[in-house]
Amino acid sequence: MKIALIQQANEADPEVNLERSMEAIRNAATTGTQLVILQELHTGLYFCQTENPDYFDLAEPIPGPTTEQLGALAQELELVIVSSLFERRAAGIYHNTAVVLDSDGSIAGCYRKMHIPDDPGFYEKFYFTPGDLGFRPIDTSLGRLGVLVCWDQWFPEAARLMALAGAQILIYPTAIGWNPDDDPQEQARQRDAWITIQRAHAIANGVPVIACNRTGFEVDPSGVTSGIQFWGSSFVCGTQGEMLVQAEVDQEAVLLVQIDPAQTEKVRRIWPYLRDRRIDAYHDLMYRYLD
Amino acid sequence: MKIALIQQANEADPEVNLERSMEAIRNAATTGTQLVILQELHTGLYFCQTENPDYFDLAEPIPGPTTEQLGALAQELELVIVSSLFERRAAGIYHNTAVVLDSDGSIAGCYRKMHIPDDPGFYEKFYFTPGDLGFRPIDTSLGRLGVLVCWDQWFPEAARLMALAGAQILIYPTAIGWNPDDDPQEQARQRDAWITIQRAHAIANGVPVIACNRTGFEVDPSGVTSGIQFWGSSFVCGTQGEMLVQAEVDQEAVLLVQIDPAQTEKVRRIWPYLRDRRIDAYHDLMYRYLD
Repeated sequence: MKIALIQQANEADPEVNLERSMEAIRNAATTGTQLVILQELHTGLYFCQTENPDYFDLAEPIPGPTTEQLGALAQELELVIVSSLFERRAAGIYHNTAVVLDSDGSIAGCYRKMHIPDDPGFYEKFYFTPGDLGFRPIDTSLGRLGVLVCWDQWFPEAARLMALAGAQILIYPTAIGWNPDDDPQEQARQRDAWITIQRAHAIANGVPVIACNRTGFEVDPSGVTSGIQFWGSSFVCGTQGEMLVQAEVDQEAVLLVQIDPAQTEKVRRIWPYLRDRRIDAYHDLMYRYLD
Repeated sequence: MKIALIQQANEADPEVNLERSMEAIRNAATTGTQLVILQELHTGLYFCQTENPDYFDLAEPIPGPTTEQLGALAQELELVIVSSLFERRAAGIYHNTAVVLDSDGSIAGCYRKMHIPDDPGFYEKFYFTPGDLGFRPIDTSLGRLGVLVCWDQWFPEAARLMALAGAQILIYPTAIGWNPDDDPQEQARQRDAWITIQRAHAIANGVPVIACNRTGFEVDPSGVTSGIQFWGSSFVCGTQGEMLVQAEVDQEAVLLVQIDPAQTEKVRRIWPYLRDRRIDAYHDLMYRYLD
């Protein structure tokens, strides 16, 4: 399976961003790409740096204008596109939603971000209602895709649930970056942790993992923080967590890579974690804390 | 907290192995060590390379001769020891059990290995009844220790359950190695995966992780396989998965390291995964597979 990850720096104008994404997809298609991954909220700036009710104007319905354009492109180029949008579902209900456009132009399915972060500069709990579709992979003409979003990548539970539901690949559109005020050692630990835990999802579940992150610096419109330096570093790793390809921290990139879904069958035969899970003893995972 | 990991190559004679472990503990104690970690089944060869009913003779009760010796040493040196023994509980019920000796010489608690592997050269399902004590950390004079054993290290569920129960450190006595017939690239992927997934447990839970592995080559008594080259590489990583210290692949070692339990409070404030877990949506973790 031939895959392309589009790592970009965004600007405010959604039309400009989408046009640039579509151009990158067209270029990737010339190499035989079958699956394209876009980064989290790729149509605009990362607006969650501050809590501003006006920013709900940025949301759009699904299906809507962006899925129509991307769906038409998916059909034209005969490939599958994983998009990530700010979804307006109803007044007062907005989601951070990944949408998969199948190669016939249809919407194969949506995933509404289940784990919502909230820390200085990433005020997502204000904007995004927690997802209510569960951890359900999305069936496409290329197979069953375990699409999750950003903060989900820190939760082994999410990866496991997707794998148990038959996901053949885990895919994380992402927008994560540094607080420029943190020292370089702390920044290095954060980026390394981000890579490590996602590689671990591959290892624990015997599936390839794709993380597509934003790059570039974006100012905090409120002026409260020093903004976010998105750390790029988009990557694909194989079923044993081995790194297959990785982008730079500070450069836009179109990462092309080929993966072999048959590796899952092979690696799970000799590392059969799914066989040995102690499902009789996992009940307490449904508690917040045990005291 | 000052910690020592004892990475050793074992031989057949339990008295020789235990004497060497105790000598290493005495040496570590001279540097102010408070917590000592021994590797999995440190009193003998890794007997699970073949299924032989006679090997059940190697098992011992807990409390028993080894816990008596290690308990006396813990009391004498005023430190906590994490040991790993082949436990005879009753005729036909044997466990792979970690025992924690507190600094007053008492047994602080036991953990019976919950996830039991079985693959060529590691026929543990023949010898070890799956643990029935659950994922309960062990309270000691040094704090609450999340002691797990080897194969458990591949299961994010085990690490999470220990953290939810208040474990301040995760500790994995281990005996893992290579099939010498695998090519060097495959061997490198396996060792790297073993390190990566344990670092990820630190990251996901904001706790330090200790892995203490065996080193040395051991022949397969049945002659069926090419034996096991235990890969050593014992390590300690911090609450963000950052590597603090690591042993060589093929050398015995006493790894000394200091960790700061206060880091957990610090890192969990800004990376609050435990706050955001979707406990309303994790029920399917108790299924084997979802079809």
